[in-house]
Amino acid sequence: MSDVITQGSTQMLDALREAKRPAYVCTIASSETAAIEGLSIAGASAEMRRYTPPADMECLFYGRARSIPGIAATPDGIPSPVIITMAALGLTKLPVFVVDAGCEVPPQTPYFRVGDRPADSILSGRSVANAAELYERGWHLGEQLAKVTDYLLLAESVPAGTTTALAVMLALGLDAHGKVSSTMIGGANELKRQTVESAFKAADIQPGSLASDPIKAIELVGDPMQPVVAGMALAASREVPVMLAGGTQMAAVAAVIAALRAADPNVADTAGADRLCIGTTRWILDDTTADLVDLARQVGDMPVYAADLDFGKARYPGMHPYQAGLVKEGVGAGGSAIAALSYGGVSKAALMERIEGVYAETVLPMLAGDVT
Amino acid sequence: MSDVITQGSTQMLDALREAKRPAYVCTIASSETAAIEGLSIAGASAEMRRYTPPADMECLFYGRARSIPGIAATPDGIPSPVIITMAALGLTKLPVFVVDAGCEVPPQTPYFRVGDRPADSILSGRSVANAAELYERGWHLGEQLAKVTDYLLLAESVPAGTTTALAVMLALGLDAHGKVSSTMIGGANELKRQTVESAFKAADIQPGSLASDPIKAIELVGDPMQPVVAGMALAASREVPVMLAGGTQMAAVAAVIAALRAADPNVADTAGADRLCIGTTRWILDDTTADLVDLARQVGDMPVYAADLDFGKARYPGMHPYQAGLVKEGVGAGGSAIAALSYGGVSKAALMERIEGVYAETVLPMLAGDVT
Repeated sequence: MSDVITQGSTQMLDALREAKRPAYVCTIASSETAAIEGLSIAGASAEMRRYTPPADMECLFYGRARSIPGIAATPDGIPSPVIITMAALGLTKLPVFVVDAGCEVPPQTPYFRVGDRPADSILSGRSVANAAELYERGWHLGEQLAKVTDYLLLAESVPAGTTTALAVMLALGLDAHGKVSSTMIGGANELKRQTVESAFKAADIQPGSLASDPIKAIELVGDPMQPVVAGMALAASREVPVMLAGGTQMAAVAAVIAALRAADPNVADTAGADRLCIGTTRWILDDTTADLVDLARQVGDMPVYAADLDFGKARYPGMHPYQAGLVKEGVGAGGSAIAALSYGGVSKAALMERIEGVYAETVLPMLAGDVT
Repeated sequence: MSDVITQGSTQMLDALREAKRPAYVCTIASSETAAIEGLSIAGASAEMRRYTPPADMECLFYGRARSIPGIAATPDGIPSPVIITMAALGLTKLPVFVVDAGCEVPPQTPYFRVGDRPADSILSGRSVANAAELYERGWHLGEQLAKVTDYLLLAESVPAGTTTALAVMLALGLDAHGKVSSTMIGGANELKRQTVESAFKAADIQPGSLASDPIKAIELVGDPMQPVVAGMALAASREVPVMLAGGTQMAAVAAVIAALRAADPNVADTAGADRLCIGTTRWILDDTTADLVDLARQVGDMPVYAADLDFGKARYPGMHPYQAGLVKEGVGAGGSAIAALSYGGVSKAALMERIEGVYAETVLPMLAGDVT
């Protein structure tokens, strides 16, 4: 399928095309890490970033946020990638489930509550005290979800999540420096490096020192989304194919899964390893300051699929910054778009038209000052 | 099917037998009403009743409770009907989803959080301040669940729920006095009558005065389970058959649904009315101090099915009190048993044997003092 770029085996993409009842599950969380100045623009300000995960989920249910006016956006007003997810899920009618792994502000939607607190800053050296519990809850949830779907798309919305992704991948021994993406152009790689270095000092760990204890790595320098999605993916992939729908944040989850498997081969049957893939956007693959494909290679050659979206000629200039490398991914935008293009049988043109429609419905009123 | 007693059309029972992927969804809540002495024995004491809903859910996931030792039981040690649900769901492998409509103590399982507070006592005259919000959240959850299942069993675990059921049915104008069941023999009907009378005084309402405003009735004298299950049932029954799995508490939900339909015919398409039934145990039908069948008749001739369970000759004497009319129903015990006997193709003897097995695994160690 030319509208989806593939790296590695296409088996998981074929499975999605042939799925009968896939489901979309988005895990959200917040952490004090997002308050570090300069690290995240997933929200108009540090204060507003607290509302980005719930606002994204509210958009999926109600067509606009409730916790904030309109829709989440960067300080420059570039809309959350949720506009892509809204369009893709609207076209495919996929069931939507929200998982709260630990949000400062809970979403005003139905949601699975698996965590009861946001993460501390990774600068504390102990960011997710309840990581083991989150992993167990995620596992049990994944078992149940696998019974009601035949293909699971696991998405995320976690401000500053690429920094915690970098930290966890380094703790697990991956060669990850300079390979994680960001909402920002350039990726703030140097600030991320410094932040992770400080976090490692506070946690008293070295790169690779937690290679055999991934849950501990999350407990010290991760975020709450990671253990929940790892648990869900491992349990569910025993039964059904699972797409980790996201950019380099999902590479970190894949790294956790690979480390858990290495530590305990019984954690999943052999077949499960072939039932995992990463689904993202082409902007992540185009990111010259990151390398998702290499990260996926490092965690056992996980296939990577990317929706070949092109916002360069979008009708609304406010969408063009995506093409320049801003925002790029989140809320499972890429995975949802892939589902629309494969399972949904939607053409790239029809998907673009719907994304523009969602932009017109959600962002234009904000720009016109018509949103309260 | 001789193992299921039927009242009214058998169409919904046939649909369950032919279902491909039914799902079990249990909504739990707590209210200060359960603290009124003599009203509920769903828990060994008023203090322990706070833990009954989460403990029931933990049993479904882990085979025993985590919030309390072992399993919930009456003051006399008669186990929660969850032993029936555990057996039936274990045999059918139905997916299990927990919905927290407002629990004092959240369950240590994955769960949908739709409410954030337990109900006040109905004696306050305003027991569920967030009833309208709970109804809306339930509706949105039901929409999503209907996409992943082809038959929905909606269960409940709400201590003192028959009292709030009585109050809501009376507020809606049903002839309900002396017709609701109870965990207790005799049903504490007189205490319930007095309690509801006091609640109506505090709320300044009369029997029937809220016939056209069922959400208001719940807000004043109901419990949080009612609006959530009513919303889920209405939304889901547009697409798939829905069994209200419970005794007279579910008659109250059915009454709320009927009143919502009468107030706004657009709330569900016509077909939806034929996609609802009540599933319970034979002990509810045998209850001479109650009349579920008449209540179901009053809310539009909703079909009632009852699992023909017989604990009179159970291997363990601790199960015999069920046959004498104690406990009787809860946690969707009847509906789950019906699912096992129809969809699951399980014989009554095999179901009984598994219930005895669950009793041996969960209750015997408690009686032996082996549970901490």
